[in-house]
Amino acid sequence: MIGGLIYEGLAKDAAEAEKLAEGGEITFDSCHMHDAVGPMAGVVTASMPVWILENKTFGNRAYCTINEGLGKVLRFGAYDDEVLKRLRWMEQELYPVLEEAVAIKGEIDVKVLIAKLLQMGDEAHNRNEAGTSLLLRELVPAIMSCSKTQEQKIAAFNFVNGNNHTFLNLSMPAMKCTLDPIFDIPYCTLVATMCRNGTDFGIRIAGLGKNRWFTAEAEMVKGLYFPGYGEEDAARDLGDSCITETAGIGGFCMAAAPAIVQFVGGQVSDAINYSTRMYEITVGEGRAYKIPALDFRGSPTGIDIRKVMETGIRPVINTGIAHKNPGVGQVGAGIVNPPEDCFKQAIAACAEAWSN
Amino acid sequence: MIGGLIYEGLAKDAAEAEKLAEGGEITFDSCHMHDAVGPMAGVVTASMPVWILENKTFGNRAYCTINEGLGKVLRFGAYDDEVLKRLRWMEQELYPVLEEAVAIKGEIDVKVLIAKLLQMGDEAHNRNEAGTSLLLRELVPAIMSCSKTQEQKIAAFNFVNGNNHTFLNLSMPAMKCTLDPIFDIPYCTLVATMCRNGTDFGIRIAGLGKNRWFTAEAEMVKGLYFPGYGEEDAARDLGDSCITETAGIGGFCMAAAPAIVQFVGGQVSDAINYSTRMYEITVGEGRAYKIPALDFRGSPTGIDIRKVMETGIRPVINTGIAHKNPGVGQVGAGIVNPPEDCFKQAIAACAEAWSN
Repeated sequence: MIGGLIYEGLAKDAAEAEKLAEGGEITFDSCHMHDAVGPMAGVVTASMPVWILENKTFGNRAYCTINEGLGKVLRFGAYDDEVLKRLRWMEQELYPVLEEAVAIKGEIDVKVLIAKLLQMGDEAHNRNEAGTSLLLRELVPAIMSCSKTQEQKIAAFNFVNGNNHTFLNLSMPAMKCTLDPIFDIPYCTLVATMCRNGTDFGIRIAGLGKNRWFTAEAEMVKGLYFPGYGEEDAARDLGDSCITETAGIGGFCMAAAPAIVQFVGGQVSDAINYSTRMYEITVGEGRAYKIPALDFRGSPTGIDIRKVMETGIRPVINTGIAHKNPGVGQVGAGIVNPPEDCFKQAIAACAEAWSN
Repeated sequence: MIGGLIYEGLAKDAAEAEKLAEGGEITFDSCHMHDAVGPMAGVVTASMPVWILENKTFGNRAYCTINEGLGKVLRFGAYDDEVLKRLRWMEQELYPVLEEAVAIKGEIDVKVLIAKLLQMGDEAHNRNEAGTSLLLRELVPAIMSCSKTQEQKIAAFNFVNGNNHTFLNLSMPAMKCTLDPIFDIPYCTLVATMCRNGTDFGIRIAGLGKNRWFTAEAEMVKGLYFPGYGEEDAARDLGDSCITETAGIGGFCMAAAPAIVQFVGGQVSDAINYSTRMYEITVGEGRAYKIPALDFRGSPTGIDIRKVMETGIRPVINTGIAHKNPGVGQVGAGIVNPPEDCFKQAIAACAEAWSN
């Protein structure tokens, strides 16, 4: 938040930003209430360029900023000069190239890219190497054709190319605009949103509409830490990125991305087990999104809170682990679940809302 | 051969080329005798640009042409105007861009790319989508920087980008220059080369040197045919591309590329079984090349003819199926083995050469 206020020129330093933020003049709201998603701290401010994803069937859109890369970045709470300089460069140098390139290229079918990347060892949450590669292959001719200087185009390419998490900021809004149309389907007990802010984990249920959140304390992530860090450094589970799992990819497709266990811990058999168990709490199987290691079974899609309660199986999420202090960045990655209490509250609310 | 002679301007049409080829004036030789490899018909002529791969440890090099794409192409025996025009375009328009781009970029570590693509669902013989993506990511900034016109650069990018088999023509020479240094290791019973020409399958044994081939009739490929084609259309097993299996990738890493079973037939469990069985006839496990689905076990590397004879397990090769008539192109893909007789002859020759 502090970084966002300085970036927008609303505060000149951290002290002023904190004062402003505490003063009540600034309205903070969840990305999900504004057709947006953001990884980790999920800060989106007015001037930030965004990817625009559209659900072609229902016409709704979802937005997400351009991924900043790893290390010291705003989404991990960093806001020093390096971070702000990068954000301004992204706005003033990177975005104009991407904007023009997307205009030249026209729409990119992200559903096709996600279907392909699942055949290429990604699961589109914590592994996005194939997704970023495929996105670049779509965009490069248009980047080359656009009107900017060669230097600016090469710098834009190198930035995207240097950050394999680029595609995460497309898979997240793709999954959000896939899910949002299920809101307000009468009596629908599917989970339409899962997200967390480092303190609480919140879910929304399709049939109960966009304004009812069921929250409980976010859990600690179990996983692998980068050298020099341990559990005592970790923040609680954080960010909107579990929209991928909500829609049946990410952790639900870990069997498609065996290499991810080297990042989040465990063995390949664990990855297969995670995916396999998710069929017990979901209502459908992806028709476009297939898991090769499960003989191309469609991804487990549509978490039904009734099944979660009946089986006691909670959705699996693979996720980065943020340092609990702002600005340090990512300290590891692992596996986490939504707290059981979210589902208990939600099913009670369904029962109450829909009882005769 | 006919296409190659016309392309080189040595013959003006097929009739003249056939006459010339039959006349004894032209010397034909195996790619492998000239530090080269070629997929399918494997035609390399004097003017064709090649990728140059170097074994940095031993200093030896291997060469391979630029992949022409699928459909009607020289390596499947086609030589009509479309094919020749494309070959000339590749020489005069594509190659200058790639040559300058590689000069700007400098060496590309193909070993790293192969290690990565095995984590991304490729096996670098019949699935090269990740490999081609990673190669493009290496080359794009240099393509953008090079001195050619924007149109020429975009056309070059689009050609490579439009052909996911591009990387095959790098993985093949990479594997050849990996293997060639084992020639003339005394008493070494490892297979240094496997290749086939649509009639015969030939192998060479490290300890017996580069000039001794053990050949037998190439087998028919078992696999999936494209719509409209069947076994009666197929040529016998063909091409140098099984140098990938000889070095432990390709079919030996099918467990890393489950999506390939949709192309060559079978189920994912078959892909895992193929890889697993290859450990029984190999002497080592890749230190850079790991198979995620086998919990990152190193690829089965170094086929020992003694193990092949003891176990009766022949190396597994996944391969394209060419139409038996020239010019039709690929009609399917599947699985094939080298004929047992190659190994029988080779082990007898070892016994004879090395008996006291």
